[in-house]
Amino acid sequence: MKAETDCLISRGEEPLNLEMPFSNLGSFLTPNESFYVRCHFPVPEIQIQDWRLQVHGSVGESLELSYEELRQMPSRTITATIECAGNGRSLLEPKVEGVAWGMGAVGNANWTGVLLSDVLDRAVVKGDALEAILQGADQGPIKEPPRPPGEIHYARSVPLGKTTGDVLLAWSMNGEPLTPRHGFPLRAVVPGWFGMASVKWLQRIVVTNEPFHGYYQSIDYAYWEQREGMPDLTPLREMQVKAQIARPAAGEVISARTEYRVYGAAWAAADEVAKVEVSSDGGATWAPAQLLNAPVKNAWRFWAFLWKTPAEPGNHALVARATDAAGRTQPRERLAEYGTYMINHWVPVEVQVR
Amino acid sequence: MKAETDCLISRGEEPLNLEMPFSNLGSFLTPNESFYVRCHFPVPEIQIQDWRLQVHGSVGESLELSYEELRQMPSRTITATIECAGNGRSLLEPKVEGVAWGMGAVGNANWTGVLLSDVLDRAVVKGDALEAILQGADQGPIKEPPRPPGEIHYARSVPLGKTTGDVLLAWSMNGEPLTPRHGFPLRAVVPGWFGMASVKWLQRIVVTNEPFHGYYQSIDYAYWEQREGMPDLTPLREMQVKAQIARPAAGEVISARTEYRVYGAAWAAADEVAKVEVSSDGGATWAPAQLLNAPVKNAWRFWAFLWKTPAEPGNHALVARATDAAGRTQPRERLAEYGTYMINHWVPVEVQVR
Repeated sequence: MKAETDCLISRGEEPLNLEMPFSNLGSFLTPNESFYVRCHFPVPEIQIQDWRLQVHGSVGESLELSYEELRQMPSRTITATIECAGNGRSLLEPKVEGVAWGMGAVGNANWTGVLLSDVLDRAVVKGDALEAILQGADQGPIKEPPRPPGEIHYARSVPLGKTTGDVLLAWSMNGEPLTPRHGFPLRAVVPGWFGMASVKWLQRIVVTNEPFHGYYQSIDYAYWEQREGMPDLTPLREMQVKAQIARPAAGEVISARTEYRVYGAAWAAADEVAKVEVSSDGGATWAPAQLLNAPVKNAWRFWAFLWKTPAEPGNHALVARATDAAGRTQPRERLAEYGTYMINHWVPVEVQVR
Repeated sequence: MKAETDCLISRGEEPLNLEMPFSNLGSFLTPNESFYVRCHFPVPEIQIQDWRLQVHGSVGESLELSYEELRQMPSRTITATIECAGNGRSLLEPKVEGVAWGMGAVGNANWTGVLLSDVLDRAVVKGDALEAILQGADQGPIKEPPRPPGEIHYARSVPLGKTTGDVLLAWSMNGEPLTPRHGFPLRAVVPGWFGMASVKWLQRIVVTNEPFHGYYQSIDYAYWEQREGMPDLTPLREMQVKAQIARPAAGEVISARTEYRVYGAAWAAADEVAKVEVSSDGGATWAPAQLLNAPVKNAWRFWAFLWKTPAEPGNHALVARATDAAGRTQPRERLAEYGTYMINHWVPVEVQVR
């Protein structure tokens, strides 16, 4: 376990929260030991022989599947980038409450498992069903009001339209069995959505014909969408288009009159990243970066930009911004409605040229 | 304005919150000057010639109605008891946050106005419409997180099934024009629902085809309903069946070996109050009270119970409980899921017999 933590920055021990130093960005697939960890409660200790996945609610046949039974179902492997909805929070001004993530609460992996839709087909979902509530084995009390009484399990719902698509119940991450902190024995992977939807330590799926408003999609992991001029509490869902600079790091000293390779990753949700641009003057002017790999559905794209550094010494603010194939791009200013989540406005990286 | 306040207990000046001393319970119709006042923001100062009721959203024809135009529509008068969802909060143990209401945040009045359904008929609601959001002119910032940014208006939605029934847009209370603190020039009256639904200073109705999750039906005025063992944030709606003792007051000294007339009111929501019982031993044994008036739809019923006080001096805990025509009754213990609202468990009134 020690080795797994060595590559990560601790953002809390109880519950365990770890992020990758984003300047370590290297391979397209994030090594498991470098992949960020987000927990809300203690990591559950699960004995595989005792564990079952329960499926019930608006279904014709309730299921109770063992790990072996799941492993015998047809499996598939997908690539998916998962970003925590609060990634970048420590960069917000003024400071806000919540886990103080830098830029490293994001990673990309190959996930192997069974499609949620295949499991639901076995349970024969009823015609009026609307959502599947995914419940984890992790549980504990909520400390801040407004809060439900007693202990609750982490839970999140996905609409059945989404689940019939590409939601995976994964037992493997980059070819290795899930480790306890990544959700052993089974976790959801909801491609394109922020990480809070990819419920770990999955133990129960409740199919429901009414929208679910659990704690983690109302009080937490929600934002105020303006509707007819009135704020409407809306669960966080899709990741927002975003480019991040891995190198240089903030404060780095760079030689004058040279070519510096600015380097990073960019990701989006429904549509692929189509363009990344870089500014070396805080966003006044922009130049296109080079996209380094062909688009892979639901995965980030690496990019680089050769910056001809100026002759004169001075401070410079590098900014990267991405645009997806549908034309969505990053806002210049932070939107107050997003609260402490969905952080994809322009964030300058200050460097010194000498 | 002074006289209107004299009969009420202040529970806050800014915003203005006033309640009736429940021991003053007298007439079936609560006098306007004794009717509780609940505000969330400063009372808006509205000039009637400038005021309009806007109706828009999923409608065939947006409306902008003046006070005179509304007054020319067919009107009706209904009786409705309105109870604040937090009525009785100061009796909770342990103490909770929120306006420290005693038992007097409840009143009964005749309300005159136009049916919401008549207004919506004029606007020609579309087939996919689901709810009507009622927005007041009162506005201000929210102080405690989680909160929407900036200033918001008070707003609450009612499902269209409900609005086609008996929701009234009232301009008159017990035959008098609404006073500013009661919602001049127009307020909603949603019979059977807690007071938070009866939006005051109504200025805008937005018909919507998606469920609304505004601040006052998610962060505030909501509770945790247990659904498949998972807490589900649910807007407060129907009042809960409840009897309150007006006399004796807590701590009152009562003669031994006499007949004391215990007296109070009881109310419910969808079904009328069918039975009130009184206990003089903290809930161990119960005897029926007499219902003093015939049931009036959506209004409280007064009741009395002749208590033959014991010969020996001592302390006694009087408790009243109501049962509605559908058999719903009051729980013995407080339900934690209700948070700081829906307070209808047995509440003993301690008195001394001498």
